[in-house]
Amino acid sequence: MQMGTNLPKVGSYNRAVVLEAIQVSDGISRVQIAKRAGLTAQTVSVIVRKLLEEGLVIEDGSVPSSGGKPRTILRVDPTAGYAVGIHFDPGEISYVLADLAGQPVAKLHTDVIPGLAPDAVIRQMARTARRMLGEADVPDDKVLGIGLACPGPLDPDGVMNFPPRLTGWDHVPIKRLLEEHTGFPVTFDNDAAAAAIGERWAGLARATPSFAYLYLGTGIGGGLFLDNQIYRGRSLNAGEFGHITVVPDGPGCYCGNRGCVEAVCCPSAIEATVRARLAGGADSTLAESTSAEGAHIDHAAICEAAAAGDPLALEVIGEVADRLADAAVSIVNMLDIDLLVLGGPAMHKVADIYHRVVAEAVTTRPLARRLHTVRVETSPIASDAAAIGAASLVFHATYSPRLGTLLTS
Amino acid sequence: MQMGTNLPKVGSYNRAVVLEAIQVSDGISRVQIAKRAGLTAQTVSVIVRKLLEEGLVIEDGSVPSSGGKPRTILRVDPTAGYAVGIHFDPGEISYVLADLAGQPVAKLHTDVIPGLAPDAVIRQMARTARRMLGEADVPDDKVLGIGLACPGPLDPDGVMNFPPRLTGWDHVPIKRLLEEHTGFPVTFDNDAAAAAIGERWAGLARATPSFAYLYLGTGIGGGLFLDNQIYRGRSLNAGEFGHITVVPDGPGCYCGNRGCVEAVCCPSAIEATVRARLAGGADSTLAESTSAEGAHIDHAAICEAAAAGDPLALEVIGEVADRLADAAVSIVNMLDIDLLVLGGPAMHKVADIYHRVVAEAVTTRPLARRLHTVRVETSPIASDAAAIGAASLVFHATYSPRLGTLLTS
Repeated sequence: MQMGTNLPKVGSYNRAVVLEAIQVSDGISRVQIAKRAGLTAQTVSVIVRKLLEEGLVIEDGSVPSSGGKPRTILRVDPTAGYAVGIHFDPGEISYVLADLAGQPVAKLHTDVIPGLAPDAVIRQMARTARRMLGEADVPDDKVLGIGLACPGPLDPDGVMNFPPRLTGWDHVPIKRLLEEHTGFPVTFDNDAAAAAIGERWAGLARATPSFAYLYLGTGIGGGLFLDNQIYRGRSLNAGEFGHITVVPDGPGCYCGNRGCVEAVCCPSAIEATVRARLAGGADSTLAESTSAEGAHIDHAAICEAAAAGDPLALEVIGEVADRLADAAVSIVNMLDIDLLVLGGPAMHKVADIYHRVVAEAVTTRPLARRLHTVRVETSPIASDAAAIGAASLVFHATYSPRLGTLLTS
Repeated sequence: MQMGTNLPKVGSYNRAVVLEAIQVSDGISRVQIAKRAGLTAQTVSVIVRKLLEEGLVIEDGSVPSSGGKPRTILRVDPTAGYAVGIHFDPGEISYVLADLAGQPVAKLHTDVIPGLAPDAVIRQMARTARRMLGEADVPDDKVLGIGLACPGPLDPDGVMNFPPRLTGWDHVPIKRLLEEHTGFPVTFDNDAAAAAIGERWAGLARATPSFAYLYLGTGIGGGLFLDNQIYRGRSLNAGEFGHITVVPDGPGCYCGNRGCVEAVCCPSAIEATVRARLAGGADSTLAESTSAEGAHIDHAAICEAAAAGDPLALEVIGEVADRLADAAVSIVNMLDIDLLVLGGPAMHKVADIYHRVVAEAVTTRPLARRLHTVRVETSPIASDAAAIGAASLVFHATYSPRLGTLLTS
């Protein structure tokens, strides 16, 4: 059942609306905020005064206005707070120290040591986060928290549930352990949802009410903003675009389904397809650089070869792009969004191909294409998207206006 | 950008929350409303007094309470208002006169006369609606409006845009014309969204925060409730489940896409598949009842034959069920919902087969299946779902709590 609301909640909600308006704009005046958010000039003025006092917002010059009196420009103060974003991928761990405006101040990557116990990995994460904060001279009272992007499925308490590519990690309470080891609050989400929140806070989707993020990493996932709100679903596992069926009775996927996007489009599936065709005698520059079985051909080499025009690599990447395009059209037909963002590390070298094929499909095939166009954009922060998104998780959880906060509970 | 809110909006929103709590429960006390909606006893008491004065709600007996004092049970007064729901399907027009509780008082169907001009069809709708109200002795001041369920795509002003199975209906302002011809306000939506709203107001989904409705009619569509709110998308065309690609490079669909659910699962596709297999010599009781080309075999006969155990009909309906199940799993993986409702007239005679195959897939294949189960239910009002839903559109638009109404605009 829908919950009711009350007066104090209205105040904190409007505060978040004003702060978000300042963050997503590239400089904005009080008058513009009032107009865009539908609030009175007085309400905006009172909220902005408080944000200035707290040091979250700064006045940054002024612009002329039609009324004669110049308008003061407001911006979020990037130095008002920091967060460390950690992206825990089965292959490597990425770290970003970001300021309140969502801009990375420092980055680093560490390998995941095979066989290391979960608690040891989490202690390593905590030490690395602490070291980055120390090296950047960020005092503890400026740290808003740690953002953690993990492979799903996750439960609402931050416990990992049967993560498909991480044996030994089932039922690990990663949020609680990381809080214990760092002493900071931890905000968590799955990697693709984190990447979507990063685009919302500081990236391509700042001003877009409804968008989907198709995340291509070791696995394939996604994130959803619908009507200006992140949509998480019943068990925090919405947006699993990697498990849309695109090949009926297709190859089995670890998830339990068949013919999933992930089962035919993820890096390991691409490697398997190329190896099978090489074994079948396909002509490719990749054949020269490897043993007869193609055992050493990896996804990076295939993408490199596709970018260089290798026919086999182009053929396989082209087929993958077609299946991604099928999924993209299904997403658009189901959710009638404004923007589809493509991102994640598996886009490296092949982003142009994926973008071209998906954008063409989304322009020509959706049912409502004559009513409005759907933009397709490639995230410029592809390889760090989830880590930057993880840091944004902290800011977004702290400051963004969520309709849910209006509701009593 | 997310909009702000203000005080008067809080009042009308909480009023809608209380009215919905009464409607979706099977009798509820003031104390229970306060508890479930997170409102104070005083707020609920003031709102309920107003609803009683306006005659929207009645006191209907009392139940003992643990505190000793019996609690008065509240219900929506079904006779407080009426709406006529009209479902405009390319094949026929269905009408339902429904009371405020969403229960049908009268029903009728008329054929769509081929070649009749849009304006003449809309005048016929208006006359029929007027006649139903007259025969049921509903005075004009008790009519809350007309609900209209149309094939999509629709634009926000109620104009039909290239409706795929209705030639001559492009750019017809059906909402405005029906308002002129009836003199009542018209609330419109596409047929599948209307069916979903019907299930929310008076059916299977009264108490479910997030559900999808997969609507099987002449075409295949759907409706979405996410976090207690209907989700319509950027151009009111979300939930087009019929245009999820389930067969890559599959048959072309009128929508511009290929291998859509609708292109392989709608009644005309089922007819085409059966005819092709009969022409290829398939063994079936359907062969006896028809000419060599199978030209007279229609969807109803095929479903009847499947229900009676005919092998060809069962084979084809089974394949359709498999593709519907693929789409259902994709919907669940994308939206992480609680409930999937199957409904619409094309379920007739084969509802059990579709339900069994879809329910098994949704239990065994989604990624988050270990975290929560997704119910699959067949709507008991299958053939009238869109018309009853169309009437519910009026009640839902008038009375349901929508977070959007909290926002200034």
